[in-house]
Amino acid sequence: MAKNENVKNGIIFGRGQKNDAFAKYFTGQSYLKGLVSPEKEVNVGVGNVTFEPGCRNNWHIHHNGYQILLVTGGEGLYQEEGKRAQLLKPEDVVVTHDGVKHWHGATPDSWFSHVAITAGTPEWLEPVSDDQFQKAFQQGKEDK
Amino acid sequence: MAKNENVKNGIIFGRGQKNDAFAKYFTGQSYLKGLVSPEKEVNVGVGNVTFEPGCRNNWHIHHNGYQILLVTGGEGLYQEEGKRAQLLKPEDVVVTHDGVKHWHGATPDSWFSHVAITAGTPEWLEPVSDDQFQKAFQQGKEDK
Repeated sequence: MAKNENVKNGIIFGRGQKNDAFAKYFTGQSYLKGLVSPEKEVNVGVGNVTFEPGCRNNWHIHHNGYQILLVTGGEGLYQEEGKRAQLLKPEDVVVTHDGVKHWHGATPDSWFSHVAITAGTPEWLEPVSDDQFQKAFQQGKEDK
Repeated sequence: MAKNENVKNGIIFGRGQKNDAFAKYFTGQSYLKGLVSPEKEVNVGVGNVTFEPGCRNNWHIHHNGYQILLVTGGEGLYQEEGKRAQLLKPEDVVVTHDGVKHWHGATPDSWFSHVAITAGTPEWLEPVSDDQFQKAFQQGKEDK
């Protein structure tokens, strides 16, 4: 039984639908509940992303922008290229700066959800391999 | 006994400290937990605001920016000048555009909290009178 199964039903903002539009940039199943779409006068999009255990997005970069993650449920991982991974829990906040290659997702054994506030244009890169993912999980556990 | 007393302890992001820095722009007691400070490369600030029952901020305008409210707990009110007030519940999202005069806060009988994502410079105006506030509450209840 995975940890934090309740996250599957959505924490505050709802789980939303299967994240089919971005499925090719994810390993495993994620769900997206869109909250705000960027528009002329509002330079960010906001969405609640829910990850099944082991699900993570590919390495990616936000160009001419940034991303803020507000962790709402479960247990997850965040890693910037060349740095140790961080274990994420509810109430944690992550700011990814312009041009920084990174990924985020659930731990192998827990559901995970975060609100993402995103500006700029994403560039999607290679998947996080099982090897990288397991190493990140070890690092996250060691440092917490 | 007020409704949604649990919101007093913070929903996910913590209640934070008494919002002394902005107290002069509020009627009643609010609390602020800062999550992200705006900086050169990140044009928004993010904070969790908790309002005691009856607490609301003054009428205000975001210039050269916007504000997004993500409701996290309790029951609140949002009103733009010249429009009917809206009753807010967890999962509700509000986008205030550049230049729009508005206010937000708790209902008279409930704690309330929202995450605020704010860009630009606020201009603080007059308080929401008790009369305006009670009328807004009636409108919110009628329309829900």
